[in-house]
Amino acid sequence: MAEFNVPLRSIHFTLFEVFEAHKMWQGIPKLAEVADRETAVAMLEEAAKLAEQEIAPLNRSGDEEGAHWDNGEVTTPAGFKEAFTAYAEGGWVGLTGNAEYGGFGMPKALGAQIDEMLYAANSSFALYPNLSTGSTVAIDAHASETLKALYLPKIYSGEWCGSMCLTEPHAGTDLGLIRTKAEPIDAEGQYLITGTKIFITAGEHDLASNIAHLVLARVSDAPKGAKGISLFIVPKINVDESGNLLEPNNVTCGSIEHKMGIKASATCVMNFDEAKGYLVGELNKGLAYMFTMMNYERLSIGIQGLGCGDSSLQSAIAYAKDRRQGRSVTGTEEPAAYADTLLVHADVRRMLLTMKSLTEAGRAFSTYVAMQLDAAKFSQDPEEKARAASYVALLTPVAKAFLTDMGFDVTVLGQQVFGGHGYIREWGQEQLVRDARIAQIYEGTNGIQAHDLLGRKVVFDKAETLGVLTREIVEFVDGINSVLLAPYCSQLLATLDRFSMLSDELIVKIVDNPKELGAAAVEYLHLFGYVMSAYMWLKMSVVAEQKLAEDDGFYQSKLDTAKFYFDRVFPRTESLFETIRSGSAAMDVDTDWL
Amino acid sequence: MAEFNVPLRSIHFTLFEVFEAHKMWQGIPKLAEVADRETAVAMLEEAAKLAEQEIAPLNRSGDEEGAHWDNGEVTTPAGFKEAFTAYAEGGWVGLTGNAEYGGFGMPKALGAQIDEMLYAANSSFALYPNLSTGSTVAIDAHASETLKALYLPKIYSGEWCGSMCLTEPHAGTDLGLIRTKAEPIDAEGQYLITGTKIFITAGEHDLASNIAHLVLARVSDAPKGAKGISLFIVPKINVDESGNLLEPNNVTCGSIEHKMGIKASATCVMNFDEAKGYLVGELNKGLAYMFTMMNYERLSIGIQGLGCGDSSLQSAIAYAKDRRQGRSVTGTEEPAAYADTLLVHADVRRMLLTMKSLTEAGRAFSTYVAMQLDAAKFSQDPEEKARAASYVALLTPVAKAFLTDMGFDVTVLGQQVFGGHGYIREWGQEQLVRDARIAQIYEGTNGIQAHDLLGRKVVFDKAETLGVLTREIVEFVDGINSVLLAPYCSQLLATLDRFSMLSDELIVKIVDNPKELGAAAVEYLHLFGYVMSAYMWLKMSVVAEQKLAEDDGFYQSKLDTAKFYFDRVFPRTESLFETIRSGSAAMDVDTDWL
Repeated sequence: MAEFNVPLRSIHFTLFEVFEAHKMWQGIPKLAEVADRETAVAMLEEAAKLAEQEIAPLNRSGDEEGAHWDNGEVTTPAGFKEAFTAYAEGGWVGLTGNAEYGGFGMPKALGAQIDEMLYAANSSFALYPNLSTGSTVAIDAHASETLKALYLPKIYSGEWCGSMCLTEPHAGTDLGLIRTKAEPIDAEGQYLITGTKIFITAGEHDLASNIAHLVLARVSDAPKGAKGISLFIVPKINVDESGNLLEPNNVTCGSIEHKMGIKASATCVMNFDEAKGYLVGELNKGLAYMFTMMNYERLSIGIQGLGCGDSSLQSAIAYAKDRRQGRSVTGTEEPAAYADTLLVHADVRRMLLTMKSLTEAGRAFSTYVAMQLDAAKFSQDPEEKARAASYVALLTPVAKAFLTDMGFDVTVLGQQVFGGHGYIREWGQEQLVRDARIAQIYEGTNGIQAHDLLGRKVVFDKAETLGVLTREIVEFVDGINSVLLAPYCSQLLATLDRFSMLSDELIVKIVDNPKELGAAAVEYLHLFGYVMSAYMWLKMSVVAEQKLAEDDGFYQSKLDTAKFYFDRVFPRTESLFETIRSGSAAMDVDTDWL
Repeated sequence: MAEFNVPLRSIHFTLFEVFEAHKMWQGIPKLAEVADRETAVAMLEEAAKLAEQEIAPLNRSGDEEGAHWDNGEVTTPAGFKEAFTAYAEGGWVGLTGNAEYGGFGMPKALGAQIDEMLYAANSSFALYPNLSTGSTVAIDAHASETLKALYLPKIYSGEWCGSMCLTEPHAGTDLGLIRTKAEPIDAEGQYLITGTKIFITAGEHDLASNIAHLVLARVSDAPKGAKGISLFIVPKINVDESGNLLEPNNVTCGSIEHKMGIKASATCVMNFDEAKGYLVGELNKGLAYMFTMMNYERLSIGIQGLGCGDSSLQSAIAYAKDRRQGRSVTGTEEPAAYADTLLVHADVRRMLLTMKSLTEAGRAFSTYVAMQLDAAKFSQDPEEKARAASYVALLTPVAKAFLTDMGFDVTVLGQQVFGGHGYIREWGQEQLVRDARIAQIYEGTNGIQAHDLLGRKVVFDKAETLGVLTREIVEFVDGINSVLLAPYCSQLLATLDRFSMLSDELIVKIVDNPKELGAAAVEYLHLFGYVMSAYMWLKMSVVAEQKLAEDDGFYQSKLDTAKFYFDRVFPRTESLFETIRSGSAAMDVDTDWL
C-alpha cells in the first residue's frame, strides 16, 4: 500500500495560481480579516500533516474493524477517538464556522481542500466531522440566537457532534413522505419527537460527549407532503442553558448497517421515542432549511469522490512505477531488470492519465464551486452575491454527481492498474472503490442530482444562469491568445455551442412532455460535467503555459494532462449528445415484461 | 433480497429460436448422438432447479462466512460441500467433457447456459466446478492417454477437482517470467516441481478427495521466456495407476487471500516443494497448451460478468416494481398508494433497460461464441471448422472483456436502482458488484484481452477473420426486409463500415508505431463489443418480429429492448471512434511528473 500524500503543490496551484482565491479574500472584509495566502498555506500544511500522519493510517484498520454496535452503544474503530480529538483540538471542525460563535470564519475554498485531504485519507473518518459541520451550517442559518449560542461553539470545538436525521424506511428520495411526529410541549419551541430514522451517518458514536441530531418531523396539523415538514434539534443528552449535560434524551440507536464500504462510519437506525426536540426557525420550513445546508454537504460529498479518486491515483502511479511486467513495445527500456515497469505500456498510461485528468479537473471544479459559495455568503456586492448564489444552485448538483461518478470510475481504474493485487484487501485499492461507491448514492442519489439540475436549475430557470455561465466561459476562451491552446479553445467553444442549443431544445421538449426530463437528466449532467472540466483544463492550461519559462516539469505536466483530457476524455460528449437527443421514446415499454 | 430465477424463457429464445442450436447439433454426428432440443430443455430445467434451490441460497451466506484457511487446510462455507456433491452427482462437471472418458460430450452452447445460471446464482461456488472443467479441457487436448484415463473420469465425476497454477508473485500478465522449476525423475515424464504460485482459484478446498493442479514450470535447460514453459499435472494426493489415493504430495496451501468479493472462493498461495508432477504433452509447449483451455475459460469468465449482471437486473426489476417513492411526472398512477412505484420514473427505466439490453445481448453473444467453439471442435466440414476456429480466436477476447466490463457496469446500475439499500449487504446488490469486479481482472485482465484482440487477432491477422465476420453481418442485415428494423439496419451498417475503415487505419498505424496498439486497444474492444451487441439485437429482433402474431408480450419486449439499445446504448460508439482516432500522442508524457 502506497503512503498517502496530500497533493499540496496541486492544491496551491489550483487555489492561488489558477483561481487566485487569496485576491478574492482580500476584496471581502469579513474574509480579509482572517484569510490571506500565507495563513492558508500554513493551515493547509498543518491539515496535511494531520491527514497523512494521524488519519490516513487508520483507513485500512478502520475498514477491517468497522464500527461496533452493542446494545445501543456505538464504538468507532481503534484510533478514531484519538484522531478525532486531535482534529477537533486543531480547530478544524469550526474552520469555516461563524466567528461570532467560536468558528474561524475561513472561506469554503480553503475548507474544500481540507475536505479533500480528509476524504482521500480516510472517508469513514471524514464523515464524522463532516456531519458536524453540516449541522452547524443549518443551525447557523436558521436557528434562534439561543440555540446558536448553545450549540455552535460546542460543535465547532468538537466537544459535541452533529447528525442529520432525514431518511425513514419508506421515505428516502421522497422526503415529503416522512412520518416522524413532533408534539409541542410549550410555546417556547419545545417538542416531543417520535419516529424512526434510517441511514443516519454518525447517528451514534463515541467521539464526543453529545450529539445534536437535526431531525425532520411533522406536527399533527401540518400540511401534507414536503410543505409540512419542520426541523428540530434533538440532543442525544439533554442539556441545560449553559450546555451542561443532564439526563439522556429518549434517543436510541437501534442498530448499525453492514455495508459495502465506509465501514468505520456508523450508519445508524435512530429511534426517537418522545425525545425532547427544539424547533429550528419556523414550523413547516424544515425542508427548505435543509437545502441551505445541502449545497455545502453536496459539494462535500462530491469531494469525497474526488478524494477517493486522488488516493487511488497516487497508489496506482506508485505501483506502475514499481511493478515490472512485460517490455516496452518500442524496445526494452531497462535491460538489466527482469522486466520493464508498467509505465512503459500505453494502456497503463491511458488509465493513469484518465484518472489524473479527471482528478485535477475535479479539484479545480470543486474549488471553483467553493469560491461561488464564498461569494454568495460573503460578497458585499449584491449583484455579485446574487450571481454567485445562482451559480451555486446550478453547479452544486453537477459537483455532487459528476465528481462522485468520476471519482468512482477513477477508483475502478486505479484498481485495474494493480491487476490481481487490486482485488486483494491488503493493497487498499479495492477499499477505495467500495468507499467511493456510496457517494453516488447518498446525499441525494446522482439521478436526483441530475433531475435537480435539468428540472429546477435549467428548465425552471429558463437557462438564465446557464446563459450567464456560458458567457463567462466564452469570454474567458475568447481572451486566450495561444497557439498551443487554440485547438482546445475551438473544441470547448464548439461543444459549448451544441450544449447551449441542446439545453434550449430540452426546455421546449420537457415543457411539452415531462417524461423527457428523466430520460435526459443523467446524461445531461455528465455532459455539463465534461464541459466544466474542459473549462477547468483551459483555466489551468493558461496559467501553466505562462509559467513554462520557470518550469521544473510541473507546468508541462499540466499541459500534457490537458492534451490528454481534450484528446481522450472530452470526446465522451459526442455519445452523450446523441443519446440525449433520442429522447424518452425508448422508455415507453410494457413494464410487465421487464 | 429478490429470489434468483433462471431466465429459462430467455435462454430458450436465444438457443432455439434465435440461433436454432438444435439444428446445428443435428447436423454434426457426434453432437446429434447426445443433444437434441428436448434433452437440452430437460437438462436446462434440471440445472435451473439446482441453481435456484441448492446453489443460489448459499450466495449471501458464503459471502458472509468466506472460505477458511487453517494450517494449510481450506474449508468452504457451510453448505458448499453438499451443493457441490449434488452438482457433481447430477453429472454437471462432465457435461461438455469427452464421452470416451466419462464426460457427456454435450455442446458448449448448452454448457454456456449452465455456466450463466451458476455464476448468476453464486459466482464463488461456480468457480469450483469451472476450474475443474477448465483443467479437463487442457488434459483432454494435450495429455497422454494414460493421464487422460487416470484423471478425466475422476474430475468429470467430481470425485476430484482441478486447478490452474499459472501466476507467480513477480509473473502475472507476463507468464514468460515464471520461475517454478521442474526436475526430471525418470524418462516416463515424472518430474519434481518446486516453486510458489499465487492467486490460485480453488487451489485447496474440501469439496473433493483430490485436486489435480495444472502447473506451469520450467526445466533447467529450457529456453528463456515464454518458449521454455512446460505444463505438468501435480496431484494434491499421489495416486496409483488405478487412481487409488496414496500419500500426500508435497503441495501445500500457504494462505488464502482476503478479497473484495468472491469470498467463498478460495484464492490460494500454493507451495510446491519437490512435488511429483507429470508432464502434459511435450516439454516447453506449456503456454500454448494453456491457450487451448483459455478460450473456454475466457468465455466462461465473460459469462461470470453476464451472470452477475442478470442477477442484479432481476433484483432491480423486482425492487423497482415494489418500492414506492415519488409520483409519475405525468400524473399520479396509483392514488390509493402513498406513492407510485419506482417504475414510473424515466430515469429508473433508463437504468433497467440499459441493464436489460446489455444482458440479453450478452446472453446472445456468449451463445454465439459457444456455438463457434462447438463448430471448431465438432464440425466435420474442414472449412467450417477452420472458419469457426478463427472466429473463436477473434471473438474470445471480446466475450471475456466486453461481457465482464458490461456485467460490472450492469451490477453498478442495479445497485443504484436500490438507492441506499443498494449499499447495504443484506440486500445483495453490492455483493454482485464486488463479485463481478474480479472478472475484469483475472483470466487475463481486460487490457490484455484488448491487446490480444487488436494485436494478434486483427493486426497480425491483417483483419482477415474480421473481414469474414463483417461480410456475415452485412449479408445478414441485407437479408432483413422489415420497415420496423430498417433504421437499426442502417445504423449497424453505417457503424460497421466506420469500424472496418478504422480497423484498416489502425493496422497501418500500429505497424508504423507499435505504441498505437496499447493506446487504442481497450476502446477498440468496446467498439467491437457494441457492434456485436447490435448484431445480436438485430438477430433477436428479426425472430421477435416474425413471432409478434403469437405474442403474449415477450416478443414485443425484445423489440422494445432493441429500440432502447439502438437509441440509447449503441451511440456510445461515437465517442469511441473519436477517442481512438486521437492516437497515442496524448500518452507521450514525462512520467516523472505523473
